[in-house]
Amino acid sequence: MTVKDRFYSYIQELQDAITEKLEQVDGKASFKQDIWQRAEGGGGRTRIIENGNVFEKGGVNISAVHGELPKSMQQYFEVDEADFFACGLSLVLHPKNPFVPTVHANWRYFEMYDKQGNIVDQWFGGGQDLTPYYLFDEDAKHFHTVCKNACDKHHSSFYATYKKRCDDYFWNSHRNEARGIGGLFFDYCKADDNMDMEAWYAFVTEVGNSFLKSYVPLVEKRKDAEFGPEHRDWQEIRRGRYVEFNLVHDKGTLFGLRTNGRIESILMSLPPHVQWRYDHSPKPGSQEQRLVSVLKEPQEWV
Amino acid sequence: MTVKDRFYSYIQELQDAITEKLEQVDGKASFKQDIWQRAEGGGGRTRIIENGNVFEKGGVNISAVHGELPKSMQQYFEVDEADFFACGLSLVLHPKNPFVPTVHANWRYFEMYDKQGNIVDQWFGGGQDLTPYYLFDEDAKHFHTVCKNACDKHHSSFYATYKKRCDDYFWNSHRNEARGIGGLFFDYCKADDNMDMEAWYAFVTEVGNSFLKSYVPLVEKRKDAEFGPEHRDWQEIRRGRYVEFNLVHDKGTLFGLRTNGRIESILMSLPPHVQWRYDHSPKPGSQEQRLVSVLKEPQEWV
Repeated sequence: MTVKDRFYSYIQELQDAITEKLEQVDGKASFKQDIWQRAEGGGGRTRIIENGNVFEKGGVNISAVHGELPKSMQQYFEVDEADFFACGLSLVLHPKNPFVPTVHANWRYFEMYDKQGNIVDQWFGGGQDLTPYYLFDEDAKHFHTVCKNACDKHHSSFYATYKKRCDDYFWNSHRNEARGIGGLFFDYCKADDNMDMEAWYAFVTEVGNSFLKSYVPLVEKRKDAEFGPEHRDWQEIRRGRYVEFNLVHDKGTLFGLRTNGRIESILMSLPPHVQWRYDHSPKPGSQEQRLVSVLKEPQEWV
Repeated sequence: MTVKDRFYSYIQELQDAITEKLEQVDGKASFKQDIWQRAEGGGGRTRIIENGNVFEKGGVNISAVHGELPKSMQQYFEVDEADFFACGLSLVLHPKNPFVPTVHANWRYFEMYDKQGNIVDQWFGGGQDLTPYYLFDEDAKHFHTVCKNACDKHHSSFYATYKKRCDDYFWNSHRNEARGIGGLFFDYCKADDNMDMEAWYAFVTEVGNSFLKSYVPLVEKRKDAEFGPEHRDWQEIRRGRYVEFNLVHDKGTLFGLRTNGRIESILMSLPPHVQWRYDHSPKPGSQEQRLVSVLKEPQEWV
């Protein structure tokens, strides 16, 4: 099987594994599935969970699209007319309990073809990152340790490199703070002297396979923590920053909106209940203040 | 006095008149004022109302900034290095009651200078538009009639032209629907054979002076209407579309975020409580459905 076929099978299976586990963790809600077609070629399988015991809103979506590279993507990749294939899994989970962090992950594969249908370029991309509302150092360490262990099996420099890229990417520049406490972000992972496409495939699937291990223990540990309306307010205000990042800065989101992607699948990333207050800032010395100060200066966790 | 000095005095007085009247309408909350300075020159006077009887959140802000034209603005205006002056009043009001519409308005004046400080270009811009959550035709007619009357005193074609531009501008292209039911939008209003800067000044201030007349009667009529959680949910979901427009499409907002504007003054436009649900659509035949169908095909109201 080609890398393309194997990776597409892989994300289908991974979607099943992740949604099955998350339903079990939630104990109440189940994922609703929508199959959609893209007029220009391909489509996707969107799975959404809402109003669960644990997950207030979330999506675990896969898609595989192909056809002529849209004009906006030509500019983006700095290429002329070409055909393309892209597939990937994207997930965002917004828990109800403010002590459980939001998580985002995406693993994707891309191919470009010449007029004869030969592959002229191919690469993997992806990553996963955590957005807590209350910062527990042990949780941040756990998440990053799982990310690092997955990386270390493939290259000793990957964790440091992709951790840094994650901090750089998920940066709300207009707020001068990170969206969350990071994780991994990699893109344009192409065959070179050290890593052929097989090696990249092994790396990306290793990271994908590590997702449940990185996140579920944090959910299990915090999902029954008691919280009051003040914790919930803070969560909703911070979710506003999440919206700001996704709508103002996130390339994937803007890309989808500009290339006639399926809006409801793209915007599943937006949190269910959100607040914006004028000039809100947490009390000095509070837990909330500590989170903000860490977001302003990304740290090393392992 | 120069046009610049007169217009700046005008927006200061208009801010006073508008905030005074809105406080009176609200009956509970008053505007909190923040004076801010811009490092590169100028500053502003931000006035915010929150948690009122009528207004859940709103801002009526003025600013006057000057200095070297930022690089991003050079590209935007397609000019080389230049000095500039810009001043304006921006307001957004998010009422608590879902039957009272949100309103936005902005009136502004811009000057550009050569190295010797001579004015090389100058123009007015602005407009006002209404975003209802429940559509009352008589309210839409009232708002547009006040807009049209203000326009008609200055040019018989202005209302038709600027009403159309408003519909075109406040278009959530990724949703294929308007943000609201429109109003007026004009920009680059420069001296020509028909209108000198004095005539434009008279027009823009006429529109500004008509604001309270266009909006306050709608607030008075609807502010005590009974509503339930289902109306409130719908309002919060539609506010999500407002956020999407402002963060994805609104040039003023993106401009501010990219030119190191005062974030809290720019983002005062975002609603206080917002919801995103997956693939939500109103029931066929409902009031909510009717609003959406009108937003998909902007109408003539007068």
